Amino acid sequence: MKLTVVKIGGNVIDNQEFCRSFLQDFSQIEGPKILVHGGGKIATNIAEKLGIETLMVDGRRITDKPMLDVVTMVYGGLVNKSLVAQLQSFNTNAIGLTGADGGVILSRKRPVKEIDYGFVGDIEKVDSGQIAGMLGQGLTPVFAPLTFDRDGNMLNTNADTQAQAVAVAMAEEFEVNLVYCFEKKGVLSNPEDDDSVISTLIPSLYEQYKASGAIFKGMIPKLDNAFKALSEGVSQVIICHAAEVKQAVSEGIAGTKLVLS
Amino acid sequence: MKLTVVKIGGNVIDNQEFCRSFLQDFSQIEGPKILVHGGGKIATNIAEKLGIETLMVDGRRITDKPMLDVVTMVYGGLVNKSLVAQLQSFNTNAIGLTGADGGVILSRKRPVKEIDYGFVGDIEKVDSGQIAGMLGQGLTPVFAPLTFDRDGNMLNTNADTQAQAVAVAMAEEFEVNLVYCFEKKGVLSNPEDDDSVISTLIPSLYEQYKASGAIFKGMIPKLDNAFKALSEGVSQVIICHAAEVKQAVSEGIAGTKLVLS
Repeated sequence: MKLTVVKIGGNVIDNQEFCRSFLQDFSQIEGPKILVHGGGKIATNIAEKLGIETLMVDGRRITDKPMLDVVTMVYGGLVNKSLVAQLQSFNTNAIGLTGADGGVILSRKRPVKEIDYGFVGDIEKVDSGQIAGMLGQGLTPVFAPLTFDRDGNMLNTNADTQAQAVAVAMAEEFEVNLVYCFEKKGVLSNPEDDDSVISTLIPSLYEQYKASGAIFKGMIPKLDNAFKALSEGVSQVIICHAAEVKQAVSEGIAGTKLVLS
Repeated sequence: MKLTVVKIGGNVIDNQEFCRSFLQDFSQIEGPKILVHGGGKIATNIAEKLGIETLMVDGRRITDKPMLDVVTMVYGGLVNKSLVAQLQSFNTNAIGLTGADGGVILSRKRPVKEIDYGFVGDIEKVDSGQIAGMLGQGLTPVFAPLTFDRDGNMLNTNADTQAQAVAVAMAEEFEVNLVYCFEKKGVLSNPEDDDSVISTLIPSLYEQYKASGAIFKGMIPKLDNAFKALSEGVSQVIICHAAEVKQAVSEGIAGTKLVLS
């Protein structure tokens, strides 16, 4: 059976009107589906208003306890429930989840090496059976980028990685189509030209674009995640603009399609 | 089959150490169970820090949009997920829910009569089948005091009423034991004497205590809710101290037991 896993970033969430239109498109995707969302700027804004500083070490964001509380509130509460309530109004029976809910995504707190990232989770195990049970009840899981550990802590978790881990786990039982939605039309061969979308990306081409500098920065972990999903059993990975999610899923004609060979 | 529905108030949530000990007790209750939690003072504290005023009209709290966002964050995110993660550490497979999740508790925005309460929900329908499905998967639903309407709004909802509505809906299929936990040992015949617990309360006695003024204020809506649950099919209602939840459930010997005759 086919299953669609869609990841949306914070930029979709930050734009209320666009987000609503995205959710309407998403609700029209046929068959079982899962949404994984990122954080957006709201957490940073609320942290600022609460007088909580965003800690950075070597350019990396650190999740200390006050910031963990903020992301748990904002991602797990405000953002997640707003998406769920809107999807319900589009007749999609959404259920908002963090990894802790139903114990579906267990992590461990990232071990301290050079940097102590604080309450950040590295995913250990996805309970695909529990998620499949929800899908079987006609539910559409909506995941906040939060997981938990065995000690009862919530943990801040990268949404791209979480989408990949969920997609891979579900691939044991489903034919999984993973779609990363973001603010560009796809992976670009020329970062200056928004229309230079690479229609099909294979690993050797990816290496060439990395070497030439056309693919750089944040796209690299995103694509590493995406190729990992493919190599671990996900049937199809597409990276596209959030406005084109329906075309990408139903016709496979939008954005960049990743293939292993 | 037996089902235990436990409601805890904000006072339990506000005391971290006591809350943890309560959750440990709750996790040891045998058989399927559901937890419904109230809000606590954290929402008011965070609203204050964010510069959001608590609106009151005629002594009633109003939920305007900024306050709705705060309670959605705090009840649906921070409080709910903290309870879920802690229950997971006690080997209870908790799943945090608002009424919007899985569409389990549909409300409508309270109609404006003398007072416009804002984004407050009056419960219309509980999807007992969906909740029973979760119980069947070994899950323990943990409800935040939030529901939703058909227009995609989250709605602030009274936790006592929500516990009663869930208990009544589940009573179609289960033998439901509803336990309201609070900061007193039970319903008191003398409000000055914490040990004057009424062991069994019947409606005629309730009317007498109301007339004499021994039962007053916040206890009246709580007891009205509780008697409503009984008259609509819930098998047993107990009102007790949160520290005595285990005794109340397993032995039925703590707090005040409500009976119809």
